[in-house]
Amino acid sequence: MNGVVDGLPLIDHHCHGVVRDDLSRAGFEAMLTEADASGPLHGSLFDTQIGMGARAICAPLLELERFAAADDYLARRADLGWDEVTRRMLAGTGIAHYLVDTGFLADALTTPRELAAYTGARASEIVRLETVAEEVLARSEPVGFAAAVRVALHERAVTAVGFKSVAAYRVGLDLDPERPSDAEVDAAAVEVLRNGTAARIAHPTLTRFLIWAALDFGLPLQFHVAYGDSDVDLARCDPLLLTPFLRASSGLGVPVMLLHNYPFQRSAGYLAQVFDHVFVDVGLTLHNVGVRADAVLAELLELAPFGSVLFSSDGFGLPEIYAVNTTLFRRALTAFLDDGIAREYWSTADAERVAVMICSGNAERAYRLGAS
Amino acid sequence: MNGVVDGLPLIDHHCHGVVRDDLSRAGFEAMLTEADASGPLHGSLFDTQIGMGARAICAPLLELERFAAADDYLARRADLGWDEVTRRMLAGTGIAHYLVDTGFLADALTTPRELAAYTGARASEIVRLETVAEEVLARSEPVGFAAAVRVALHERAVTAVGFKSVAAYRVGLDLDPERPSDAEVDAAAVEVLRNGTAARIAHPTLTRFLIWAALDFGLPLQFHVAYGDSDVDLARCDPLLLTPFLRASSGLGVPVMLLHNYPFQRSAGYLAQVFDHVFVDVGLTLHNVGVRADAVLAELLELAPFGSVLFSSDGFGLPEIYAVNTTLFRRALTAFLDDGIAREYWSTADAERVAVMICSGNAERAYRLGAS
Amino acid sequence: MNGVVDGLPLIDHHCHGVVRDDLSRAGFEAMLTEADASGPLHGSLFDTQIGMGARAICAPLLELERFAAADDYLARRADLGWDEVTRRMLAGTGIAHYLVDTGFLADALTTPRELAAYTGARASEIVRLETVAEEVLARSEPVGFAAAVRVALHERAVTAVGFKSVAAYRVGLDLDPERPSDAEVDAAAVEVLRNGTAARIAHPTLTRFLIWAALDFGLPLQFHVAYGDSDVDLARCDPLLLTPFLRASSGLGVPVMLLHNYPFQRSAGYLAQVFDHVFVDVGLTLHNVGVRADAVLAELLELAPFGSVLFSSDGFGLPEIYAVNTTLFRRALTAFLDDGIAREYWSTADAERVAVMICSGNAERAYRLGAS
Repeated sequence: MNGVVDGLPLIDHHCHGVVRDDLSRAGFEAMLTEADASGPLHGSLFDTQIGMGARAICAPLLELERFAAADDYLARRADLGWDEVTRRMLAGTGIAHYLVDTGFLADALTTPRELAAYTGARASEIVRLETVAEEVLARSEPVGFAAAVRVALHERAVTAVGFKSVAAYRVGLDLDPERPSDAEVDAAAVEVLRNGTAARIAHPTLTRFLIWAALDFGLPLQFHVAYGDSDVDLARCDPLLLTPFLRASSGLGVPVMLLHNYPFQRSAGYLAQVFDHVFVDVGLTLHNVGVRADAVLAELLELAPFGSVLFSSDGFGLPEIYAVNTTLFRRALTAFLDDGIAREYWSTADAERVAVMICSGNAERAYRLGAS
Repeated sequence: MNGVVDGLPLIDHHCHGVVRDDLSRAGFEAMLTEADASGPLHGSLFDTQIGMGARAICAPLLELERFAAADDYLARRADLGWDEVTRRMLAGTGIAHYLVDTGFLADALTTPRELAAYTGARASEIVRLETVAEEVLARSEPVGFAAAVRVALHERAVTAVGFKSVAAYRVGLDLDPERPSDAEVDAAAVEVLRNGTAARIAHPTLTRFLIWAALDFGLPLQFHVAYGDSDVDLARCDPLLLTPFLRASSGLGVPVMLLHNYPFQRSAGYLAQVFDHVFVDVGLTLHNVGVRADAVLAELLELAPFGSVLFSSDGFGLPEIYAVNTTLFRRALTAFLDDGIAREYWSTADAERVAVMICSGNAERAYRLGAS
Repeated sequence: MNGVVDGLPLIDHHCHGVVRDDLSRAGFEAMLTEADASGPLHGSLFDTQIGMGARAICAPLLELERFAAADDYLARRADLGWDEVTRRMLAGTGIAHYLVDTGFLADALTTPRELAAYTGARASEIVRLETVAEEVLARSEPVGFAAAVRVALHERAVTAVGFKSVAAYRVGLDLDPERPSDAEVDAAAVEVLRNGTAARIAHPTLTRFLIWAALDFGLPLQFHVAYGDSDVDLARCDPLLLTPFLRASSGLGVPVMLLHNYPFQRSAGYLAQVFDHVFVDVGLTLHNVGVRADAVLAELLELAPFGSVLFSSDGFGLPEIYAVNTTLFRRALTAFLDDGIAREYWSTADAERVAVMICSGNAERAYRLGAS
């Protein structure tokens, strides 16, 4: 597979814009991992897998020595400015198409179009369901909320290529698999308004409603699964908790995308095998686990059919994440496929075909992206 | 360990017959993995670890090139016919004794005797508890159900070498560890008859009853654990959920076999260490994870005493599964033992002794198989 | 990293004394693993990873051949006597400072001072909360129990460097994160006295009380997490169950140490990343998984910041555990760091700095150990 994967274009089916500003050391470290910030007990977050990755992979892109010290890296970064740094970080990623989640901190980040423009790539939008519902609730009465959300989703579905749920962050993944009635939904909307929690909806009925409302449009539906920051309760985010919902939605032919999944990537692979509509990735995980990316991706590929595995970087805020994630992803996929060739378990031709599927083919099919 | 494991006979303590018929491509793919069928979203199930394994390991057994295309493989398979294909697939497995679960789709599959006859091996029977109970309930009154089941199990225990529970599929493994009274059991039988669910018993009281009734015979009791098809709810099948039951049954001296266990093989190994009556395998897992078999088996062998680990193929339907599973098992066990030798952690003599234990010695002791 | 880690002093932040007596084969095997004893079904516990480790690593320390037979090993051990064997086992561990949990079977084991004296190391004490509470309850009235425990902890905190909770063994880790009132605590004390369970406190309110009372002293608080003997219910000991408590205690700046963690070491690493006050190790796990120590430690180091990872042996009873655990820890840490160097993911200088952090620096900072 010598270099084959390195030459393949990627469809990044889950990512975000980068910060349109220069960053202090504290600001940079706060965006490196899922920790809120460096702390007095652990010390600098540069002493993590992703911190090492930035110094190893990104420093040379700024014409520094590999392994440049953190302060030297940040000084050079400040000299060049965020725009030039972004240009350099994205230049070599090989991402041909960004599917951008625009539902979180959009004002501080580059738009999908701006992000793609750095490399002449395509950009499409993924609509975050909770953000739409919060916008609707902020401007309208709870009576008729269900209907109003459907209208809003319909408007967004004209240009978007998929939806995303952050149920994991709001109520966990042990969801009742039933679709709620509009009356239940409207009553729940009254409840969250009364509780003063309408700005951050975390109500099981509304979560379920959004998911089923999204499925009606037939667009792929993404779920944040497991690994995230300290707001998420990982014990309630095992992808296996989605089993009843996946069973209930299995006859619709609408793709459901399980993002990240760590440390439950094997369970995600299982779900992808037994449910034809389930697609999986390890997204955010790869740049955070650094040298262990090979091991983690290989675990996903134990049970998941090769036709159900996707690439995503979950690039967010720092363009360095795009550079580190794509580098690690290509290395890990190459290592996995080379291992099978060395064991005479598959041919080089099959390995190349599988590589194209995982880098772009599966996403093209599931999101019906076609040619630009 | 150069070739040592390859030469050892295996006792396959959990397996099934193969289909007595030729198969279409759709029929073949439906039996390859735990998915119901190939689907429009994922594509062909040949693009999985087991699909690759069939083309890599089985094609040469049909005098095709390694990595023959799926259609060429199936055409050659049809030319030879299922009986000759089965003969070729089983010829090199080295299975000396099959312990066959006869409780599922028995009419469509070869009998234990037929299966073993292909290679002059021994065959014994494992009796599936739920099947016995369903037969009893179909022909008798619910009053006296408990007693009638005990009579039926007694008849089967004369020739069987063990029992099997599919509690995982029916009610999950978070079982109340107490043995129910006969009155409770008969009442539960009335309930399932009334509910019209008697043909597929999924009642916690009846599940517990069957388990304790089986233990009374002193024969090893197998549990399906975790990995299976989409009917199983994996979140309720972590082997750790059996802890209260294992504690309750630990004084009886009756072996309890935990089958498959993926992705919880490390937890299964833990249970095997702390409970002397617990035996473990990774069964079905190995052919499904393909090139990752080494990694998965090694995880089981982290905590499990070497005296508590068994071999099973979970061969079912397709004889190819026997060929792929035994090949991967021998490779994985060899890799594990060679690793310890290379690290000077155990001697070659110890490694060879452990290999014999895992391939056949532990099963002989636990199932009291003796010589034929 | 050729030999660098081998030369670094270790702070063993969780360990126990060794048995002050010679041991029969049965007595020795009973202390090797987390099983109660060798059993009729599994056979000798020498046929485990740790059993192999004793013969591989410890036999030469008694001037026997590597891989000496178990009986020869035990005969030589008896000839030398427990004191001389202990001296030899500890001589090469490189442990510079033992933080000894004195709350379990203290009468049968060497004291911290005795343990450290074998090699001229330092010793400090970790106070087990439940033991203190049980002592208070044995000698005083339940009215005023909360206040009496605080006084007792205050006395112990004068010389101790940390506290330890065995909540995992008593009530599981799915703790209500709230601090109970003194009235609730005293009422719970009345209840356990009435129930006759005061000698082994297993009451959720008392467990929570002890944890919060300990945090008030600002000393690091250790939790036994997951892997242990058959008394523990591993399904209730996933470290993720501590998430609500960790969120509640995250603003205090008091270190919380999660010990062992197997098979949930990846989840522990996640908690260490998102909570600055969480430190993690794999303690007991390493000598029990033997040749797999590299794989298990590497999983902990996927998400855990390098500033949050500690070393502990959980040496207990058998001095062999110290020898095997430290050998495996040094090998595993070396393998992990060398892998990153080989991948050009960090520099040798960074690897050496991280090695010092994990071997001793992080523990020095978290426990404020300073120089002796």
